Amino acid sequence: MKEISGGVCAPKGFRAGGILCGIKASSKKRDLALIYSEKLCTAAAVFTTNQVKAASVLISQKHLEDGKLRAIIANSGNANACTGEAGISAAKRMAELAADLFAISPKQVAVASTGVIGVPLPIAAVENSIEALGNSLSSDEAGHMAALEAIMTTDMRKKDASVEIILGEKPVRIGAMAKGSGMIRPNMATMLGFITTDAAISQGLLDKALRRAANVSFNRVTVDGDTSTNDMLLVMASGEAGNVLIDDEGEDYSAFAAALQAVCIKLAKAMARDGEGATKLLTINVSGADDESSAEKLAMSVASSSLVKAAMFGEDANWGRILCALGYSGIGFDPCKVDISIAACSGAEGEVKVCSNGAGLPFSEEDAKKILAQEEIEIKINMGSKTGGAIAWGCDLTYDYVKINGDYRT
Amino acid sequence: MKEISGGVCAPKGFRAGGILCGIKASSKKRDLALIYSEKLCTAAAVFTTNQVKAASVLISQKHLEDGKLRAIIANSGNANACTGEAGISAAKRMAELAADLFAISPKQVAVASTGVIGVPLPIAAVENSIEALGNSLSSDEAGHMAALEAIMTTDMRKKDASVEIILGEKPVRIGAMAKGSGMIRPNMATMLGFITTDAAISQGLLDKALRRAANVSFNRVTVDGDTSTNDMLLVMASGEAGNVLIDDEGEDYSAFAAALQAVCIKLAKAMARDGEGATKLLTINVSGADDESSAEKLAMSVASSSLVKAAMFGEDANWGRILCALGYSGIGFDPCKVDISIAACSGAEGEVKVCSNGAGLPFSEEDAKKILAQEEIEIKINMGSKTGGAIAWGCDLTYDYVKINGDYRT
Repeated sequence: MKEISGGVCAPKGFRAGGILCGIKASSKKRDLALIYSEKLCTAAAVFTTNQVKAASVLISQKHLEDGKLRAIIANSGNANACTGEAGISAAKRMAELAADLFAISPKQVAVASTGVIGVPLPIAAVENSIEALGNSLSSDEAGHMAALEAIMTTDMRKKDASVEIILGEKPVRIGAMAKGSGMIRPNMATMLGFITTDAAISQGLLDKALRRAANVSFNRVTVDGDTSTNDMLLVMASGEAGNVLIDDEGEDYSAFAAALQAVCIKLAKAMARDGEGATKLLTINVSGADDESSAEKLAMSVASSSLVKAAMFGEDANWGRILCALGYSGIGFDPCKVDISIAACSGAEGEVKVCSNGAGLPFSEEDAKKILAQEEIEIKINMGSKTGGAIAWGCDLTYDYVKINGDYRT
Repeated sequence: MKEISGGVCAPKGFRAGGILCGIKASSKKRDLALIYSEKLCTAAAVFTTNQVKAASVLISQKHLEDGKLRAIIANSGNANACTGEAGISAAKRMAELAADLFAISPKQVAVASTGVIGVPLPIAAVENSIEALGNSLSSDEAGHMAALEAIMTTDMRKKDASVEIILGEKPVRIGAMAKGSGMIRPNMATMLGFITTDAAISQGLLDKALRRAANVSFNRVTVDGDTSTNDMLLVMASGEAGNVLIDDEGEDYSAFAAALQAVCIKLAKAMARDGEGATKLLTINVSGADDESSAEKLAMSVASSSLVKAAMFGEDANWGRILCALGYSGIGFDPCKVDISIAACSGAEGEVKVCSNGAGLPFSEEDAKKILAQEEIEIKINMGSKTGGAIAWGCDLTYDYVKINGDYRT
């Protein structure tokens, strides 16, 4: 697997674009995106588990029923959630407007929205700019970048990935973009993720690969524990790579699934790193648990703890809070067998073991400070039981998180 | 029921005191507390549900097995949690030292600790000051205040309550103190709560009344979602009031249980109001739910949402986040039936309905701002289903929460 450039435009058969249509009067950046495939794609998706679902989620779920898509239209600046019947109409209209550009069925268009909840979506802004949106499509990286900018909200960094693998002798590409920096947590959160691939793959296996990839990436990221109304992770497979159709779980499937997983983990880590107000990426690496599912819950409990997150911001090796967060995870374990170390992800600053068999070890505060001053910190936890392991990602809790979220709507 | 003064010293038969013994070298305030009853008391307790339990919790659970107590010794500045065998010895030693003062059995003494996790408790400081602690006991309010100061950590305000009710013709008193301003959440959290009463009541009913009171008070408060290793809520009943022993669930029990509940709710609200860094008390009042238990989970989900808490700090009527938090509570409901209003608890600023049947209403931003500028805000949510209701309390999320918790240990 090698990294390549191009984002969602890297795989064969896709174009993307983005424009400023003025969803919010105050918008200065692009806010309307389009991703389009020349051919009808096999598609799969994962949606928010929140019972309160945005209109775009409800419409896209319907349009995905047959596992086929040609296009995705997405806006930032307005979530079109909690907007009643008018919201549903607006989401349907977005799909129609995009479909009309290519004379395709609206059912072949997915709709995504992100932004403030409960404010009517100004659909006229989309109507007035739909031609311009169509004209913005491009098959090179500029098209990808324009679409990516258009789905960002409080994101500080662009999150994308593209890779190439060889199946048979054919190069197969996967490209992706994502937005999300708040409300990220297990079972997803205001994250939008759009993935394109030119692989030929059956719908059932594309769906399976996407679900597994989401489970070990986006579902292991937490910023603030809130789950959004708008989450959506979509993949479209054009089949243009010309590989032999992947329709069993053999070598080709494994290679494709691994590449998809790597792409999702890269985006998920970027989201944690870009958590609202975050200054540090935290990697919580749990080993020695009873099984993977226990390890995941333990790791997520630590990654979600406000007290652990605030301590990391303060660069304070307050490991008692880590043990405490394990203790309320809901997973049974023997506190007297737990070991905890902290390490810089760069590896240069070494590793400091702070807790052995559930009790504190004397350690050099100076060495610990050096590690905690880094931008990427790994917390290694060995539960001392069996061989279950899982990694979760999170970020520190900072003044800026509060600032960003204290006055978002107005 | 009338409010009286005196705190834990208000009921007959109790003395309290507190001194500075130097648990932390940097301590400037009292850090060691003692509450003592002349007579052997009927006692009941609720402890943390965290699997990682402080040594004081383990020892006190043991000492409470027979439902009898004479004294409580408590320190702040060190949690004596994750401190291994030495920690257990230190907790036992604290009970022994207190018992020796009165020539009673250590089993009649409960031990409580609060402060940093994972640092050995400097038991010598307690040993050197135990005589002084005994001498500090007083049966008037000064004793109560000294003990209360000694259990406080990051608390900004003193939290106490005392009430009197009449059972038969006898005045019966309940007095209480609590500490806690972080790590507060369902199933308790670094909160210590000590309650005294001179009621004559059976152990079974005392236990029952305490559990019910804790469930609708401390277990409905959330500051940051972390559950501590050290929580403990204890009640001691001396029987000195001379009322007819409460040994069935008749009128006397109801009156006593209601008074105990009122005391616990007063303390719980004070904890939410005093959440680390908090500037506002939030009351989440859910009605129209399927049942009380559903209403409780819905209310707690809103009270726990970082995004709702940050919006309240920013005085932003971002009600979409409230609906969103209901949506991931785990409780099933129809989003199209939900109504949401905000109101100032003072009542003077009126009430603004922001969401009806799951969709936003036009409302005056000015009126909303007036309400949100208050120190006590009520969020009223009607689920539009049946008659289940519950109230939860929380606080806003502020810059100062991050500051306080970013560098607590060092």
